[in-house]
Amino acid sequence: MTKLRFAVLPGDYIGPEVMSEALRVLQAAAAPAGLELDYTTADVGGAGIDNHGKALPDSTLAVCRDADAILFGSVGGPKWETLPPKEQPERAALLPLRKAFSLFANIRPGLLYGELTDASPLKTERIPDGIDIVCIRELTGGIYFGQPKSTTELENGEFQAIDTMVYKTSEIERIAEVAAVTAKSRGGRVCSVDKANVLETSVLWRKTVTAYFAKNHPDLALTHMYVDNAAMQLARDPNQFDVLFTENMFGDILSDEMAVICGSLGMMCSASLGTAHNSHGQPFGLYEPAGGTAPDIAGQGVANPCAQILSAAMMLRYSFGQGELATKIEAAVRKTVTEDGLRTGDIAFGRTPVGTTTMADAIIANL
Amino acid sequence: MTKLRFAVLPGDYIGPEVMSEALRVLQAAAAPAGLELDYTTADVGGAGIDNHGKALPDSTLAVCRDADAILFGSVGGPKWETLPPKEQPERAALLPLRKAFSLFANIRPGLLYGELTDASPLKTERIPDGIDIVCIRELTGGIYFGQPKSTTELENGEFQAIDTMVYKTSEIERIAEVAAVTAKSRGGRVCSVDKANVLETSVLWRKTVTAYFAKNHPDLALTHMYVDNAAMQLARDPNQFDVLFTENMFGDILSDEMAVICGSLGMMCSASLGTAHNSHGQPFGLYEPAGGTAPDIAGQGVANPCAQILSAAMMLRYSFGQGELATKIEAAVRKTVTEDGLRTGDIAFGRTPVGTTTMADAIIANL
Ligand SMILES: CC(C)[C@H](C(=O)O)[C@@H](O)C(=O)O
Ligand SMILES: CC(C)[C@H](C(=O)O)[C@@H](O)C(=O)O
Repeated sequence: MTKLRFAVLPGDYIGPEVMSEALRVLQAAAAPAGLELDYTTADVGGAGIDNHGKALPDSTLAVCRDADAILFGSVGGPKWETLPPKEQPERAALLPLRKAFSLFANIRPGLLYGELTDASPLKTERIPDGIDIVCIRELTGGIYFGQPKSTTELENGEFQAIDTMVYKTSEIERIAEVAAVTAKSRGGRVCSVDKANVLETSVLWRKTVTAYFAKNHPDLALTHMYVDNAAMQLARDPNQFDVLFTENMFGDILSDEMAVICGSLGMMCSASLGTAHNSHGQPFGLYEPAGGTAPDIAGQGVANPCAQILSAAMMLRYSFGQGELATKIEAAVRKTVTEDGLRTGDIAFGRTPVGTTTMADAIIANL
Repeated sequence: MTKLRFAVLPGDYIGPEVMSEALRVLQAAAAPAGLELDYTTADVGGAGIDNHGKALPDSTLAVCRDADAILFGSVGGPKWETLPPKEQPERAALLPLRKAFSLFANIRPGLLYGELTDASPLKTERIPDGIDIVCIRELTGGIYFGQPKSTTELENGEFQAIDTMVYKTSEIERIAEVAAVTAKSRGGRVCSVDKANVLETSVLWRKTVTAYFAKNHPDLALTHMYVDNAAMQLARDPNQFDVLFTENMFGDILSDEMAVICGSLGMMCSASLGTAHNSHGQPFGLYEPAGGTAPDIAGQGVANPCAQILSAAMMLRYSFGQGELATKIEAAVRKTVTEDGLRTGDIAFGRTPVGTTTMADAIIANL
């Protein structure tokens, strides 16, 4: 039996609730395929702070190092919101994980089923069949990690703070490859987003991406767009995009705009792929829902487990080479929400909402 | 008679068309108030490149220096799109103007009349009474102008590019004051947007803004939000904001997202205020529509002149201390579009559209 060895970091509030359902679905999908789940659970985020004094405890990091992938829940909440921004659970857990495993490629599907267009803030006539795009975000470069990054006192008593945005050719090329591969499996179109009329890093980004595609992927349709325009176009007509591709900071903003336009955060999953390959010869990766810990509904058994389940499916696809099984789970989620019409509260729209467990049960039945 | 001395830079494509209507409206409003228009017209953008070899010709800059304000049209278009990003008319005209006149404060109303909610990509039930917020963007600092900003070749033959985001206390305080004054004239709420969980500049931004408001504007309600969340909240429920307040790069993205959510770009105006005071003892400023040159409809007399007219009204308010007259023009525009129901093509929604001149005539009649 092939073992799927991964770290499970459920996190806070609804994190553990949706995680346990995702693990049930994974188990139900894996067993008939001759795959055995071999996972270790560890504290992260607020749970890390409370139980070990650190959002990413050393023991948790060790569990991750020992695994082939990380299935991540969500972290943070009111309890830790009074901490300084940089010590807040989300930031203090995710940035070190990204750095430790060189998780340079963030893949976030912007998928809204046609049956769920009510969930989107956009007028239905703009997205009659839902939304189906993908955002590829560079995740370990740019202004997040560039040096110098510091605050100094000036002679006149004022303070001055500096952040540095840095990119080099190879960092841009490796994420361009991820965008290209993603586009190949879809509509074949990549829109690279930058601010080349203002930023040097964007000039290099645009030049490098253009040359890389011309040389390695001349069959793909590559276009370029300024980030301010992209923020407009996403809200105006998201389906004009196929693969949206951008640097770290712009991707942080645009992928969240995309997520909200796709309606329920409870449906949004993501993958963050590392440079290293795991024992399956696949990229090590971290898989997490795009939404937060939803403290307001935690503990009530009503959270939408789909984002976590779909994140687990992405893990099967990218880190374990189990694309077919991933597709099977994705299809089961889709059928449950659309044909069967089972809906948690966030996507109920007047229907009687079902609970977290009922939703997962139905997904398992649809496998 | 008080003279209103300003530079008129119409720019390209529909720029001159809407500018001449805005000047007619200004003239009609000013004369009865005992004000005389004293303006000089000069080339900018593509017209600058074509006629003088430069998007911001020296002669145009001289005209601006000699004025108390700049009424700006819009620049750029397909003709110049093959130029490198940094030589494109919009960038090559605006950035030097911002620098030359220290135009540090960009004020952009996010106003959608309740009668025009059809124009917004957002579902009508999310904005039943339209939208009424304001975005205040810092315009001369941050990553736009910070040094170093350069590209170098590394030893291994790769290239590395760097941009620097810099802010100092005084730059943050002066724009905080603009946000505060704006909020006082409205709902009294300021939401400061940053990325303090990642950026040093944002940590300083948040600290400085908090201290500044506590000391100088304790009566205002100040909140903070991360930029990725702000991009979500704008698309989800824009009216949760009163004054949205942020740094240069974030403001570029969020103000454009806001503009598109407000429906027609043909209605969106803006002011960019400088540090210097003009001969009226008011801030020197540049006033421009948020939309572009619309090459597809240029020369047909169908462009919406409202954004340019509303920009002229902002000029009266901020650079000439004529707030009442500005309000009068704004009311006339509103009445023309709503009660009278006159609509250019971009906001017609099935009505028979009127032309640029007809719209301006009606606005003049409503003054
Ligand atoms: C928590 C924060 C540092 C993080 C980011 O900015 O990348 C988050 O917003 C995300 O997008 O995963
Ligand atoms: C043209 C460009 C440099 C400019 C900016 O980024 O500020 C424009 O997008 C704007 O918002 O006025």
